[in-house]
Amino acid sequence: MTTIRHSVILRSRPSGTATLSNFAVIEHDIPALAEGEVLTRTLWLSIDPYMRGRMDDAASYAPSVKLGEPMTGETVGEVIASRHADFSVGQIVLGARGWQSHIVSPGAALIALPGGVPYSTYLGVLGMPGATAYAGLRDIGQPQPGETLVVAAASGAVGSMVVQLAKRAGARVVAVAGGEEKCRYVREVLGADVCIDHRAVADLSAALREACQQGIDVYFENVGGAVQRAVYPLLNDFARMVMCGMVSEYNDAEPAPGPSLRATFTKRLRIQGFIVHDRPENAREWRAFAAPLIASGELHYREQVVDGLENAPAALLALIGGSNEAKMVVHVADPSAA
Amino acid sequence: MTTIRHSVILRSRPSGTATLSNFAVIEHDIPALAEGEVLTRTLWLSIDPYMRGRMDDAASYAPSVKLGEPMTGETVGEVIASRHADFSVGQIVLGARGWQSHIVSPGAALIALPGGVPYSTYLGVLGMPGATAYAGLRDIGQPQPGETLVVAAASGAVGSMVVQLAKRAGARVVAVAGGEEKCRYVREVLGADVCIDHRAVADLSAALREACQQGIDVYFENVGGAVQRAVYPLLNDFARMVMCGMVSEYNDAEPAPGPSLRATFTKRLRIQGFIVHDRPENAREWRAFAAPLIASGELHYREQVVDGLENAPAALLALIGGSNEAKMVVHVADPSAA
Repeated sequence: MTTIRHSVILRSRPSGTATLSNFAVIEHDIPALAEGEVLTRTLWLSIDPYMRGRMDDAASYAPSVKLGEPMTGETVGEVIASRHADFSVGQIVLGARGWQSHIVSPGAALIALPGGVPYSTYLGVLGMPGATAYAGLRDIGQPQPGETLVVAAASGAVGSMVVQLAKRAGARVVAVAGGEEKCRYVREVLGADVCIDHRAVADLSAALREACQQGIDVYFENVGGAVQRAVYPLLNDFARMVMCGMVSEYNDAEPAPGPSLRATFTKRLRIQGFIVHDRPENAREWRAFAAPLIASGELHYREQVVDGLENAPAALLALIGGSNEAKMVVHVADPSAA
Repeated sequence: MTTIRHSVILRSRPSGTATLSNFAVIEHDIPALAEGEVLTRTLWLSIDPYMRGRMDDAASYAPSVKLGEPMTGETVGEVIASRHADFSVGQIVLGARGWQSHIVSPGAALIALPGGVPYSTYLGVLGMPGATAYAGLRDIGQPQPGETLVVAAASGAVGSMVVQLAKRAGARVVAVAGGEEKCRYVREVLGADVCIDHRAVADLSAALREACQQGIDVYFENVGGAVQRAVYPLLNDFARMVMCGMVSEYNDAEPAPGPSLRATFTKRLRIQGFIVHDRPENAREWRAFAAPLIASGELHYREQVVDGLENAPAALLALIGGSNEAKMVVHVADPSAA
């Protein structure tokens, strides 16, 4: 067994836009395992937007990565040594964190994965983005048969699950996405009834009004801005706004004003935010619900695979720049059995 | 038994401010009862802000009063004749509608009232204002022991119940009211921990921040405007906004913008509106819960009593003008047994 591992570390903090020179790949010894620890060989590394924030020194809800230390990130790995009773060599596990070829973790932080679906899916469709769509619809949106649901960024990791789960619940789905190819995918593969290409329409409000002639009962909010302004006047009595994110406004120094809240009582609206991690069971419940549907092909997803741990920095920069097409994952190695 | 009744009718529609000349008192025959109908002699008439809207011809969520017809309004009455099996002479009932000394109603529209509390309370504290406070806190606000709740118009019909119900739930209550006397009542009689006199403070935001050093967990919204703007930044994670009304903004031609909804997910807020009538059981459940607490003196309330049906127009004009001090009721007659 190898005693050397590779890690992608944070070499310097970005001033403004992050660049490849902020990262470095180093080689170093794998430490010996303490009691209760597990050594994994990384197979897949998830690349997610939040990682950019961890490169800064600014106070945030999560700690920064320290200079000289490996970048943080969720992985799927294969157990190659274990001093924890629940894990044995050859198992595939989720939860080890770091941009590293080999990771030492407390066993308590790991989750053994069943087979039956591609392991990379546990970082995307079966991971937090999927659980976010699931929990938001189950706890807040609650689409009913015949109701109209609207979701933007509908080809994305969260939006694509919202579309499919809402269709499974019997709702009519009006999606918003950017570009003809994405809209085609959202309609033809994910099954949205309508997909509005926000790059192609001159008047988003008019396009939404045309597409939602019975009004809107559920709005899954992950973009804010123009879509929110177009949706709000079309909400029906007793409509729900699932407040997940407002990514189009994150660069605004000052939050822009929102809609008058008068409609909340005249229409009895429910506007409610959530963060999927607030309820740790969400992730497990989603995996249990969705893994069979992924295995059977009933739930569709897309991944963008980058090969090689050394290319993780470039993958993150592409993601931040918005040039990705789907959920980004880095293929680090194949499992031994493959 | 008399065969004549008095009615206050709508003689003309107001142009702008309503005046006494818009009303007239007429005398006319009481019609014969059809099968299933009940004749009541009115004891108490409720005077409520919504009645002003019924005087106009504008489309609203409820129909206008027709010219020449009696004004609408909820009453407590005594049954003096009945052709409905569930009602007999001498019973006291709620639900007959109209500014009339005697009212003919379908029995199905009436609710027999138990004794034990002043009958007028069924039009105020035990009526819709109380049920509104009750349902909003039970279904949306859900104040927990040690949490901080804020409510404005705290000496009013709804606010005074919100204060007391929140205290009973173990919450800390920071109230807002206009004037020294009202604030004294809110603190000393209703039991609020703090009452901010919005007429006396120069900076409402600063006063609220000072009074809510642990932030705000529940905001019962019935005023909007400056109070809403002061409350919103102080909301804690998982705070609830019970959206009941925004009376300070009802004269605005265009709704003013509201707060950015970004805080809904960063703080996992729940902003939800309701109308008490949407769930008819609310009224019955509130009467069952609150009547014993009114009888025992555990729940406090104030009424402003005007004597005589002929004075109902003046009572409504005073209410619209804001010169009332408490829930307005008209004493029309005493029960036979009294």
